[in-house]
Amino acid sequence: MFALHVLYNQPEDPAAFDKHYNEVHSKIAAQIPGVSSYSAIWCAPGPDGAAAPYYMVATLEAESADALNAAMGSEQGQAATADLPNFAGAGVAFLSGDSTRYV
Amino acid sequence: MFALHVLYNQPEDPAAFDKHYNEVHSKIAAQIPGVSSYSAIWCAPGPDGAAAPYYMVATLEAESADALNAAMGSEQGQAATADLPNFAGAGVAFLSGDSTRYV
Repeated sequence: MFALHVLYNQPEDPAAFDKHYNEVHSKIAAQIPGVSSYSAIWCAPGPDGAAAPYYMVATLEAESADALNAAMGSEQGQAATADLPNFAGAGVAFLSGDSTRYV
Repeated sequence: MFALHVLYNQPEDPAAFDKHYNEVHSKIAAQIPGVSSYSAIWCAPGPDGAAAPYYMVATLEAESADALNAAMGSEQGQAATADLPNFAGAGVAFLSGDSTRYV
């Protein structure tokens, strides 16, 4: 498998981020063809109560790097990318690579 | 499900990091009880060829936050944490939260 983690910086307005993510972005992203799994966490504060270094992490998996590239190049993949400025103005980082499964 | 992402900073000596991760750390971590899945990616460079903001991301899942806390508090979980300074001196960030599955 090949995995992509999308790390979202802490937004200025978390409620607006959540509303857009839940009502718009996740619905677009869930329709990207060729994605085997798609999940997300909203990051819990650290043990000291401090905000996590990122607000949210979304994780998509596809069969291979080529499959993920094709997925992101599809109409729905392009729509998901084009939607980022609508809620993720605080910034986003992408981490991807072949996934090694241990358990 | 509850997920934990462990983000490793770029190490000074990637070969030494990989050797320790593959031969020691992953073997300890794979024995942590109560972990439903454990996988990792070595981050590919960005489209411009620049190094990713992190070297590697390991992802563990457990049934709940309580289950993950119990897992990390087990003998094997403590051994995995105690092993971090042996290869991850460049630093590590932990991101955890309840996982929402979309696909």
